[in-house]
Amino acid sequence: MTSPDAAPLERSVFVPRHREAVRTAVLLLTCPDTRGIVAAVAEWLYRHGANIVEVDQHTDPGEGLFFQRVEFELEGFALTDDDVLPRFRADVGDRFAMECEVRFPEETPRIAVLASKDPHCLLDLLARWRTGELHAEIAFVVSNHPDHAEACGFFGVPYHHLPVQPGGKPAQEAQLVALTEQAGVELLVLARYMQVLSQDLCDRYAHRIINIHHSLLPAFVGARPYHQAFERGVKVIGATAHYATADLDEGPIIAQDVARVTHRDTVEDFVSRGRDLECVVLARAVKLHLAAKVLVHDNRTVVFG
Amino acid sequence: MTSPDAAPLERSVFVPRHREAVRTAVLLLTCPDTRGIVAAVAEWLYRHGANIVEVDQHTDPGEGLFFQRVEFELEGFALTDDDVLPRFRADVGDRFAMECEVRFPEETPRIAVLASKDPHCLLDLLARWRTGELHAEIAFVVSNHPDHAEACGFFGVPYHHLPVQPGGKPAQEAQLVALTEQAGVELLVLARYMQVLSQDLCDRYAHRIINIHHSLLPAFVGARPYHQAFERGVKVIGATAHYATADLDEGPIIAQDVARVTHRDTVEDFVSRGRDLECVVLARAVKLHLAAKVLVHDNRTVVFG
Amino acid sequence: MTSPDAAPLERSVFVPRHREAVRTAVLLLTCPDTRGIVAAVAEWLYRHGANIVEVDQHTDPGEGLFFQRVEFELEGFALTDDDVLPRFRADVGDRFAMECEVRFPEETPRIAVLASKDPHCLLDLLARWRTGELHAEIAFVVSNHPDHAEACGFFGVPYHHLPVQPGGKPAQEAQLVALTEQAGVELLVLARYMQVLSQDLCDRYAHRIINIHHSLLPAFVGARPYHQAFERGVKVIGATAHYATADLDEGPIIAQDVARVTHRDTVEDFVSRGRDLECVVLARAVKLHLAAKVLVHDNRTVVFG
Amino acid sequence: MTSPDAAPLERSVFVPRHREAVRTAVLLLTCPDTRGIVAAVAEWLYRHGANIVEVDQHTDPGEGLFFQRVEFELEGFALTDDDVLPRFRADVGDRFAMECEVRFPEETPRIAVLASKDPHCLLDLLARWRTGELHAEIAFVVSNHPDHAEACGFFGVPYHHLPVQPGGKPAQEAQLVALTEQAGVELLVLARYMQVLSQDLCDRYAHRIINIHHSLLPAFVGARPYHQAFERGVKVIGATAHYATADLDEGPIIAQDVARVTHRDTVEDFVSRGRDLECVVLARAVKLHLAAKVLVHDNRTVVFG
Repeated sequence: MTSPDAAPLERSVFVPRHREAVRTAVLLLTCPDTRGIVAAVAEWLYRHGANIVEVDQHTDPGEGLFFQRVEFELEGFALTDDDVLPRFRADVGDRFAMECEVRFPEETPRIAVLASKDPHCLLDLLARWRTGELHAEIAFVVSNHPDHAEACGFFGVPYHHLPVQPGGKPAQEAQLVALTEQAGVELLVLARYMQVLSQDLCDRYAHRIINIHHSLLPAFVGARPYHQAFERGVKVIGATAHYATADLDEGPIIAQDVARVTHRDTVEDFVSRGRDLECVVLARAVKLHLAAKVLVHDNRTVVFG
Repeated sequence: MTSPDAAPLERSVFVPRHREAVRTAVLLLTCPDTRGIVAAVAEWLYRHGANIVEVDQHTDPGEGLFFQRVEFELEGFALTDDDVLPRFRADVGDRFAMECEVRFPEETPRIAVLASKDPHCLLDLLARWRTGELHAEIAFVVSNHPDHAEACGFFGVPYHHLPVQPGGKPAQEAQLVALTEQAGVELLVLARYMQVLSQDLCDRYAHRIINIHHSLLPAFVGARPYHQAFERGVKVIGATAHYATADLDEGPIIAQDVARVTHRDTVEDFVSRGRDLECVVLARAVKLHLAAKVLVHDNRTVVFG
Repeated sequence: MTSPDAAPLERSVFVPRHREAVRTAVLLLTCPDTRGIVAAVAEWLYRHGANIVEVDQHTDPGEGLFFQRVEFELEGFALTDDDVLPRFRADVGDRFAMECEVRFPEETPRIAVLASKDPHCLLDLLARWRTGELHAEIAFVVSNHPDHAEACGFFGVPYHHLPVQPGGKPAQEAQLVALTEQAGVELLVLARYMQVLSQDLCDRYAHRIINIHHSLLPAFVGARPYHQAFERGVKVIGATAHYATADLDEGPIIAQDVARVTHRDTVEDFVSRGRDLECVVLARAVKLHLAAKVLVHDNRTVVFG
Repeated sequence: MTSPDAAPLERSVFVPRHREAVRTAVLLLTCPDTRGIVAAVAEWLYRHGANIVEVDQHTDPGEGLFFQRVEFELEGFALTDDDVLPRFRADVGDRFAMECEVRFPEETPRIAVLASKDPHCLLDLLARWRTGELHAEIAFVVSNHPDHAEACGFFGVPYHHLPVQPGGKPAQEAQLVALTEQAGVELLVLARYMQVLSQDLCDRYAHRIINIHHSLLPAFVGARPYHQAFERGVKVIGATAHYATADLDEGPIIAQDVARVTHRDTVEDFVSRGRDLECVVLARAVKLHLAAKVLVHDNRTVVFG
């Protein structure tokens, strides 16, 4: 009845029951606000046989900007995947000076997870991936510590220990970039990765690196935010998931959440309660990104939750 | 320096600084989901010179239904207010078997507030109205108790004391309906009004009566929900704003909110904490309704918050 | 049936049904942590015939400090009100190097409310006071603007308009202090009072001035915090009630609360949502203070909620 | 650099850095409220050389009951572990008609986790246990499904597959009880275990079985609560951890938490968001129980959080 020697998990064990696999495409648009955009986009899609599944849009009157996300089914659509973007640009996008992007959410993108010592966010992402909640392939895990080899082995994910030697930061980052390029990784998730990334890396993967910071930014930037929060005597702690930029903890915020604390809570309690926050907020941000629901403009995000 | 004898408040004192008064119209649409709806609506609006301010839509795959709210500026629009709905129906609505409605949010609708003994929700709504937060005219206040005459006098709102005599419920409701009709009231707000409304009244004002119930429905329906919650030993209490139907506490939910409680909290603490919840949740629901952001289908709401 | 001419509210109309008025005293103690404190305090109270209603205590291991709040009934207690503190000090407090304080919560303390332009926190406190929720007498309201005279007249509270002339800040503050002293006011509540208080005033009323700041401190100190929050693109806003100190927005935090926001919310929405937060958080802090449930040490609070 | 073949995790890898291991004892007391209890308990502890770490107490005026939790260090304490309870009863407890209990939190109790198909709560508890957050030994995991063998193997925890045959419920429960008795298990955690327990089992382990229900009880008792919640159109979902009793979903509530939902959320979204709630709420309840911070009276809990 007992099961003494377990083999690594079969992914299939965890994967949720069959889900209707209708392929869809997502158009992400940003342009100056003016009349006729909604009509032009809708008409173009209709003309090409698209069945619109979801439309979200937002007008920022202060900036005079229009944002739109349109998800439509590809079954019966007149264009090939490769033609969608150039044809849309030519027919509609250029007329309205749009920044456009096309995403195909069903093609599970490849992501990489980076961690340092603390395992909680990494383990949480691996478990969500194994249970099918995270719609992506985890191509590999990188850490500057050796600690997570076993966990990654259990989950069947390649683990790369890339220690940071004194003066060896650029070399380590070069290794990371090489791995990322080879694996065709589209998103880097910093799951409590405590190494500062170079300006160059942040630029190369602009809006494709998600970091979790263990405070409610912009409060308590930098090191040991729970200790700072404890010292200040706050009654609420939080966690923030944001796109990483070269300015540490200054990137566009994707998701935040909070928990109440009292004078009874020690710094250790802050850390413990915070772990749950960090896992949930980071996973929420990653899922929003993977579903192509986040647009960035001017260091702020439009999140079509 | 002191001001011993105050006259009733001038509304102007409270009204917020000038707000750009661009008149807009709102189309609220519900229909079976199919291809081409978004394009048809957008094209029709564009053709008539509408500048779309906001579009929200929702597809319910389970029900096969499509919901849309489109707000557009009337400046430069080709049709008169009275023509919008019939023309839209003829051109677009009928083709897609739409239920359509048109609202003009700038034309502050007339509402009535009903209360019983407890004053907190009533006072809160009056204060929000006086500070310009509530985009409506409070035509009058009705209560089955005499208690709120002074408060209404202070705020400059007519107060009608309609006591409920034994056996006199239908007569009292007839008075209420007469007042409502005379004043052209479009929305009845039950601000802790503890009288059950007749099926007839609920039908006549379907989705135009908002009630606040002091529990997180469907928990603790009926009388004394805070006492019920206390007895059950819950750790979270709540309040629910919903459209009133003849089935008490069963109408479509518009808004809910919660507060944590502990064993230290007495029933009186539940009541006191709950007052804040009730005020905030009721005001939120009323504002959503007034902004034409709530659609109802099949006892559930689509709230374009 | 209508009530056209309302007189100022009779307080009695609003006051809650009879509440058992057992007089109690509260001991507030802070001292270095050591063995025997709990026993010594409990034994002293028992020996003098006290019936303990509530005990809360907290040990801060980092600081090596012990905090305690003991509330006990005065019926059958062996000492007069004036004797409690000196006798407790002589018998117990001095032995443990305690800072001690005695409070009598049933003796409704006199408080003053200060406001500038925005009326919401002021109106909210006045309404809570009139409905009997705020266990205090509001001795007077002060503002540097004339706006609130009518509201205070309605609620029957003296209103003092103390404008701040160029260069006249010290004179205005002197007037404020004079009013406060004459009225025997024990607590100043800054209900969105936008004038910086002098170091002298803050010291004189240390831990007896409660301010509401419209952000989740320490984020967004200073002016226009909602605008700062909007610029930063946060997904959570908040409000903080704290004791005022000469270092603006740096005093000990009593209470904080939050609300979620999205990209759809404008700065005006932040302001509007924030108003509800500010009212609730400020009222919560004032009630905790009035119930003698807040101890301060080293710029942090112990809140026996 | 990669680590292809991982062995099961060494627990030490995860265990947090050295924590001061001062052994403590916890007294849990319930008795009719009267004068002198606090003094008698404190004096007895002081007389026996106890250094009190934490005292919590609560008076329920409605029930006329007094609850207390006292945690004290055993270093320098005059009595052996076995003598604490009988001596305290003889000296103090019996005089006040106390129900008393003594717990030694440092002696990590043995617990068992029961799960059915859904793995999330089980995996979450295993991960918390491996990272040292859960102060207990997981003696074994039981499921009526074979699914979790590998996961338990990875975490190094014995796994017992106890299928429920038609008509074989009593036999299966007997196996469960036998395992529990053999292993000296003190707490059963139902981590989404979808089998109803017998009255007999619930009585035998009264207040020692913690269940997680995926709704905000008492709303949506029974099967498929997320589906029920979706049908009712709620705007808030929740999870409830409670002690299991023979009356399904009626036991004393230990912890609850909530998440907001909108019309955009499908039943699947409810389920997905709910998973995070369930994990966090169940873990919170288990940790409170393990720390001897929960007292039960009359189907309600006193939680000294």
